Amino acid sequence: MKLPEFEKLDELFNPKSVALVGASPNPYSGGYAYAVHLLEDFKGRTFLVNPKVDEILGVKTYPSLMDIPERVDYVICSISAEKVLRLLDECSRKGVKLVHLFTARMAETGRSEGARLEKEIVKKARELGIRLLGPNCMGLYNPEVGLTYGYWFPKEGGSVGAIFQSGGASTDFVHYGTLRGLRFSKVVSYGNGADIDESELLYYFAHDRRTRVIAMYVEGVKNGKKFIDALQYATERKPVVVLKGGRGSAGARSVKSHTASLAGRMEVWRAVFKKCNAVEVETFDELIDQVVVFSFLPPIRGYRVLIAGGGGGKSVFSADQWEEEGFELPDLSPQARERLKEIAPGVWDWLRNPIDLSILQDTPLLPEELFRIVGENEEFDLFVFNLTEDDPLPLDLWEFWMGEQIKGVLRFKREGKPVVAVVSNGEVSMLEIKEWRWGLIAEMRKRMIDGAIPVFSSPRKAARAVKRAIEYWRRSQGNSVNLSCL
Amino acid sequence: MKLPEFEKLDELFNPKSVALVGASPNPYSGGYAYAVHLLEDFKGRTFLVNPKVDEILGVKTYPSLMDIPERVDYVICSISAEKVLRLLDECSRKGVKLVHLFTARMAETGRSEGARLEKEIVKKARELGIRLLGPNCMGLYNPEVGLTYGYWFPKEGGSVGAIFQSGGASTDFVHYGTLRGLRFSKVVSYGNGADIDESELLYYFAHDRRTRVIAMYVEGVKNGKKFIDALQYATERKPVVVLKGGRGSAGARSVKSHTASLAGRMEVWRAVFKKCNAVEVETFDELIDQVVVFSFLPPIRGYRVLIAGGGGGKSVFSADQWEEEGFELPDLSPQARERLKEIAPGVWDWLRNPIDLSILQDTPLLPEELFRIVGENEEFDLFVFNLTEDDPLPLDLWEFWMGEQIKGVLRFKREGKPVVAVVSNGEVSMLEIKEWRWGLIAEMRKRMIDGAIPVFSSPRKAARAVKRAIEYWRRSQGNSVNLSCL
Repeated sequence: MKLPEFEKLDELFNPKSVALVGASPNPYSGGYAYAVHLLEDFKGRTFLVNPKVDEILGVKTYPSLMDIPERVDYVICSISAEKVLRLLDECSRKGVKLVHLFTARMAETGRSEGARLEKEIVKKARELGIRLLGPNCMGLYNPEVGLTYGYWFPKEGGSVGAIFQSGGASTDFVHYGTLRGLRFSKVVSYGNGADIDESELLYYFAHDRRTRVIAMYVEGVKNGKKFIDALQYATERKPVVVLKGGRGSAGARSVKSHTASLAGRMEVWRAVFKKCNAVEVETFDELIDQVVVFSFLPPIRGYRVLIAGGGGGKSVFSADQWEEEGFELPDLSPQARERLKEIAPGVWDWLRNPIDLSILQDTPLLPEELFRIVGENEEFDLFVFNLTEDDPLPLDLWEFWMGEQIKGVLRFKREGKPVVAVVSNGEVSMLEIKEWRWGLIAEMRKRMIDGAIPVFSSPRKAARAVKRAIEYWRRSQGNSVNLSCL
Repeated sequence: MKLPEFEKLDELFNPKSVALVGASPNPYSGGYAYAVHLLEDFKGRTFLVNPKVDEILGVKTYPSLMDIPERVDYVICSISAEKVLRLLDECSRKGVKLVHLFTARMAETGRSEGARLEKEIVKKARELGIRLLGPNCMGLYNPEVGLTYGYWFPKEGGSVGAIFQSGGASTDFVHYGTLRGLRFSKVVSYGNGADIDESELLYYFAHDRRTRVIAMYVEGVKNGKKFIDALQYATERKPVVVLKGGRGSAGARSVKSHTASLAGRMEVWRAVFKKCNAVEVETFDELIDQVVVFSFLPPIRGYRVLIAGGGGGKSVFSADQWEEEGFELPDLSPQARERLKEIAPGVWDWLRNPIDLSILQDTPLLPEELFRIVGENEEFDLFVFNLTEDDPLPLDLWEFWMGEQIKGVLRFKREGKPVVAVVSNGEVSMLEIKEWRWGLIAEMRKRMIDGAIPVFSSPRKAARAVKRAIEYWRRSQGNSVNLSCL
């Protein structure tokens, strides 16, 4: 994709006015949800179109697109499939440049009339010079102009660009990613991808200067060669993390009825991902973990980890899992031991990597100081902090003890040292977060997330995500990506 | 272990009076925490021993064990290591039967004097006829008599017996397990296991009628033959789920400084687990997942799953991950389709297994009714429910829509159908659980957990735990365990 094409798409993705055709007072409908989001969040002009009611959510509606007295850049189409062709004519007369078809029930139904209609719509849009997003998708989340499609999407933007064939999964990605500290340049849910497709979006995000990492959920592509070119182009410029849906036979069947895609053979996909240096993940959780690593960890290329936290059992679990993913845990250095001997003569020879912090509780050595000492004396590629959740302390002491640890971790971060944290994940209800001490654990986790530290819910997940990132960074070292990979 | 020996240990584990030797007013110490727990939870008589202060937490202390005017069954020892030998003499004179050595800094320090002292203590206890739990452990959680060692341990008992070499990990196990609906017959943290060891505890829980599943975290054993006999004995009677700590070299080093154990070669351990039909897991999360399955899922031996939930992306992820773990997703039957055709002519041929519930939102078919129809018409071994978290609905409608789904899932459970649920895990803070709609998701999860449904945080975790359980149930079918496996 040439730069002028990027600029054209970028203009379409930053509309100054949006018309919602099929705005609805029925709160079960998309036509209602989009009206809520536009009215609450969109920074440009919003027009609601509905020929049957005069107002929705207290805002006047227009009987048709043609009745809108002002210019319309962007249309969200939430009317039934058979009415779309007629709407396109109106869009053309109105000068609309992009139509987002939230409208579904086309090729994905598996019925031939649906597939035929989808083809006709694309053909007509091309004739009229209108670009289409969809059909069967949630569309565009662009925090910069306040265009959104989910409740509680963050208003501030960020550096993650996302290309999702599934609207629901993209919504979950925004929600769960936000809790981990991610913010987004743009998220595009493109559904059946009848016009704007994953390849064009890859070029788009590769060019987009706000985007530092690309997250992708793809079920199938129509043009393999085009996709490989685009993926290669993007991975040479920034990390692309891909989750492929429809890997098995039931998954593939499900993909067909979801976005009318052909899932394809997984060994071919894997070969493409590998050749293009795309980072493949297998689950939704891994997708978020991976984007978190690329967003918050500086590139590292070695496997030496220094682990601290506790108590003993947690340290053992952690060491096992990092080692099983190929990391090394060099033992503490003589220099660090000498310093520790001065302050904590009772335990200096007993402390190991992993450092079990519960050993310190009878000594004058506080965790923050220990972190400083090892930070100054040890050679390691990554510092791993395990929050201790089992401390048998009263709440105020426990808060102090954890706070000291978090301070040390945040200092590592400030000093530019690569650091990740592991905080187990209580699956708490509203009730429990008040009753249990989960609230405190959750706050400590949040303090680290707010400090741009990657926080994972298990050592295994942390180790796998960091390992995949190291492999990416090693392969892309010195821009050695082979441009002739196709 | 013969039944009389079980009965002896059972008596020791159900004391009528406990003395805490080394009770302390210092809230950082174990001697404080045990005092709090005894005074708050223990149903028998509690005596606090401290020669330096007159009272702790408003309760009178005794200068020594000998000054206690009543009988003492059980001593929690929280004094320093060098004073333990003298205490044992006093215990003997006082008729104490079990001493729990919270006291640490023995063999696990790696110093020869520590190891020597530990040996002397064991020798002396044996001469005096006193049983020891520990050293270097949190001891016993027995909800029946209110003996506990962690804040917020549940007061009510249950059917999970746990044998943990790590006290901290056992605390996390109780906390996180409780959130998943687990309750415990007894949890024993045995640390260095100098006297009462993992083997004796395996026999104990094998005999214990309250215990239906045994969870075990082991770092090393001193007597391999004895352990294999005990493990075999236990697995013939109930599922034993084992997490082995110290699998790698750093983990093994850590194990040595944690509980003075020799980690041993992992291939030997795996061969033992396999031969004995113990269920091995690799992470702490998996340990809980596995115990949840054995606690709440009836034995199944087939791999056919029917998956429902949504939306489309989540259905695809789910299908992929269940298939990758060896499960099958048979498509919907003609009978079910006929019924669906009557009620939802617009979508009946479009619904597949996995069933994407978001397809229903324009139809008169409610999720609960759909669940009933497929429940009556389909042949499957397991029903898998994926809670949809991305519904673009206002809160009240969303609550209704989710509630209908949960009703259907709970009916399956009532009818005795095997069912599991997957609810993604927002890693929320106190703030977010109020602000976001996470509160509602958390409450829906809790409703299922309170209904004794196994709830997992990802399809992968659910599929792996169920698969391991099926393998166990298949191998133990018809009591075909070979008694001569040794």
